[in-house]
Amino acid sequence: MAAPTSSAPLDRPGALHHRHLLDLSTYEADEIRYLLDTAQEFREVLDRPIRQVPTLQGTSVASLFFEPSTRTKLSFTLAAGRLSAETVSLSKSSSSVTKGETLKDTARNVEAMQVDVVVLRHPSPGAPHFLARCTDSVVLNAGDGAHAHPTQALLDVLTMRTHIDSFEDLSVSVIGDITHSRVARSNVQALTTLGATVTLCGPETMLPVEMEAAMDVRTTTRLDAALDGCDIAMALRIQMERQDAGLFPSTREYHRQFGITADHLRRHPDLLIMHPGPVNRGIELTDAVVDHERSIILSQVTNGVALRMAALYLLAPRREDA
Amino acid sequence: MAAPTSSAPLDRPGALHHRHLLDLSTYEADEIRYLLDTAQEFREVLDRPIRQVPTLQGTSVASLFFEPSTRTKLSFTLAAGRLSAETVSLSKSSSSVTKGETLKDTARNVEAMQVDVVVLRHPSPGAPHFLARCTDSVVLNAGDGAHAHPTQALLDVLTMRTHIDSFEDLSVSVIGDITHSRVARSNVQALTTLGATVTLCGPETMLPVEMEAAMDVRTTTRLDAALDGCDIAMALRIQMERQDAGLFPSTREYHRQFGITADHLRRHPDLLIMHPGPVNRGIELTDAVVDHERSIILSQVTNGVALRMAALYLLAPRREDA
Amino acid sequence: MAAPTSSAPLDRPGALHHRHLLDLSTYEADEIRYLLDTAQEFREVLDRPIRQVPTLQGTSVASLFFEPSTRTKLSFTLAAGRLSAETVSLSKSSSSVTKGETLKDTARNVEAMQVDVVVLRHPSPGAPHFLARCTDSVVLNAGDGAHAHPTQALLDVLTMRTHIDSFEDLSVSVIGDITHSRVARSNVQALTTLGATVTLCGPETMLPVEMEAAMDVRTTTRLDAALDGCDIAMALRIQMERQDAGLFPSTREYHRQFGITADHLRRHPDLLIMHPGPVNRGIELTDAVVDHERSIILSQVTNGVALRMAALYLLAPRREDA
Repeated sequence: MAAPTSSAPLDRPGALHHRHLLDLSTYEADEIRYLLDTAQEFREVLDRPIRQVPTLQGTSVASLFFEPSTRTKLSFTLAAGRLSAETVSLSKSSSSVTKGETLKDTARNVEAMQVDVVVLRHPSPGAPHFLARCTDSVVLNAGDGAHAHPTQALLDVLTMRTHIDSFEDLSVSVIGDITHSRVARSNVQALTTLGATVTLCGPETMLPVEMEAAMDVRTTTRLDAALDGCDIAMALRIQMERQDAGLFPSTREYHRQFGITADHLRRHPDLLIMHPGPVNRGIELTDAVVDHERSIILSQVTNGVALRMAALYLLAPRREDA
Repeated sequence: MAAPTSSAPLDRPGALHHRHLLDLSTYEADEIRYLLDTAQEFREVLDRPIRQVPTLQGTSVASLFFEPSTRTKLSFTLAAGRLSAETVSLSKSSSSVTKGETLKDTARNVEAMQVDVVVLRHPSPGAPHFLARCTDSVVLNAGDGAHAHPTQALLDVLTMRTHIDSFEDLSVSVIGDITHSRVARSNVQALTTLGATVTLCGPETMLPVEMEAAMDVRTTTRLDAALDGCDIAMALRIQMERQDAGLFPSTREYHRQFGITADHLRRHPDLLIMHPGPVNRGIELTDAVVDHERSIILSQVTNGVALRMAALYLLAPRREDA
Repeated sequence: MAAPTSSAPLDRPGALHHRHLLDLSTYEADEIRYLLDTAQEFREVLDRPIRQVPTLQGTSVASLFFEPSTRTKLSFTLAAGRLSAETVSLSKSSSSVTKGETLKDTARNVEAMQVDVVVLRHPSPGAPHFLARCTDSVVLNAGDGAHAHPTQALLDVLTMRTHIDSFEDLSVSVIGDITHSRVARSNVQALTTLGATVTLCGPETMLPVEMEAAMDVRTTTRLDAALDGCDIAMALRIQMERQDAGLFPSTREYHRQFGITADHLRRHPDLLIMHPGPVNRGIELTDAVVDHERSIILSQVTNGVALRMAALYLLAPRREDA
């Protein structure tokens, strides 16, 4: 593929076997690599003075966000805008969802309005899959309950790729509330498909032991064990409301056992730090770690726009001659 | 008028006698037909691969929604976007309305910012008329209390028109809470103006008997009477909060008396089903009816975008040379 | 500078010494005049049939509003749109702010997504300055607590300028809750920099006496004294919640002492009336005053779009060849 430019529309590639991006469980390594390669090209486009391309002119993208979100929604909106797509947005508070309409009926209405792509965030696991079955629109999952967050995982592996030689030699530890994390689940799928070694680490109450066998990962409740021999530590955001549910004793206690500090960075001089954001500073990571030169958290954010451009570029229908 | 294309701006037509679309009480049959004809042309444009036209480039459209809405707001936004208008949006929660500003002052401010078109949804009947009097902007009523919802009625008759030979031979029954329904009121105006026969059906507490004389319609409290000889049944959404007001005994009882079921469709083999949405499945209509091949509810939604394109196209000022 | 046209991109001017528009304390008279001159040219563009210019095509502007706003947000959005910038919007309720993310982290994320300009409204004084220090984006302050509202003050002096010969001969009285008003503070800075005479008038509890010495203004608790010899009276909005804090006895009492009425306009036959809006009709100004021919409140609103176009035009980075 030639590098995208703003002066000429991009050629339509055809290497994805999927119509939707729902989760990564059925995406093959070749498809993931193709998404990453495409995203890498857009990453370079984003650093040029002229970074808007006319590829998706006339294509309409609807963001349906049934949960609050800063970066994912903004990232998708910017990605769509830089491809010249038309974006419309529905959030829970302003929509008929407050009138008790079912997801299916909302979806069918959006489809009947001939929206080409739906970007869906929803608290119920499987909501995007349901949507994909009952509409003709292309569906991109922007996070469904504790199930999957495929664009997050893809931007994570895109970020990792710029720091490593090969995924086969890579060891990643994911630290936090694994059980309730769609980010962890999608990262495990992407990383194991690409051949990386994954360790999951967290309090016993937040560590699904059945994943060890089912997903070809290692689990541990000891942070030290997770960081030994690890190239990249991905800390997950602790949901404060889990504390009330008794899943961990206190944020202070959580930090003492699973928080990453400057001391860990000293003891592991090549360790890189990732986090899907927003960080609870002083809990998952100390300020010194968030702002450390080996923290690549903001690269994740920048790569997110490029990755979502790639996903839209590869999956959205073209409306204009290209 | 030549069919609109994306390659050339549309010629400016001049057959509407109105500056605004507030309600249909003063629209003549010719004007309604002209709106429908224009919408029909846009309906065909929407099925082409390239469906965006540059007609309203530089024209600014402000959506002021003082009540929640999925489809109307989205439909107007898509319609404006497909005509290349610039859209800005104000909703109650994010605006100075929370500071107690009057509608008049909000309107004057929007006008002072040289917004060309205001699309207004408001809980107070007459709010769009008031707006039209006190600003220079073109006003499109997107629903004002129980008073009027003209674009809904126009998309309804547009949808009916694709299934019938002439409005003079058409019999439509509107079923539900007629008293509180702006959809019913605007449909009665559009349909009687076009020469159709209209029956209003609902519980006695929801049936304004004075309409029978004033609006040249028939009323009945019996669903069977409403469906006899009827071509199209339009079920209205029941507002759950009316139940607390004692206007109907229970949703179960309402469904038993006024809900349309597969059995009704069997007994009336040519009956078509419409609903402005969102449907309370199992109350106004059973699932089997909503999803039946004679339900044309989703055509209403698709036609809604085309109709709103037509309304904007015929009423909005042009900013670019066309 | 040649008058901006829509047919050719504007030349890039270079006469501002600032990268950001945070407050006016460090803006020199030349810079303010340059902003006003540029805004005046855009004001004329806005009255042409074709008023959209391609200058900021591909430039992305993010609105971060942590307080409700009608006119400022809409005004910035329209201004950005008329310069063909891409706008994205974050408000408190839909964002990670509800997850307790710090302003710094929100800002860094927005920056990492390569947003060029951030328009920030925030309840904390100094928030935009903090943002400007910790990101590479250009920051425009859209109001920070009781501290500053520079685009409001600039649109105010732009509005005044069309009615006067020179700022040196101008006497302006600002009336209301001076202590808590970012509008008053920024207007004092703009007006004194330009050489105007400023009087601040309000209840003793709302009048910061230290400003008299520090800012070269006169203060008075008597409305009559404020209006004597005054060319322009700028009434400030009373925040109803201050009443509970005991800062003034009642809105009726406030109106009796500080409300401007038709009688004041009769006694001061050349006096012009301004207000940043939204007006509490009957409190700061009677209806007759708001709607009087010497009220220039709506000119302020129109000028606001032009002024914000000028600020974006002079400060935002260019993405396309211009």
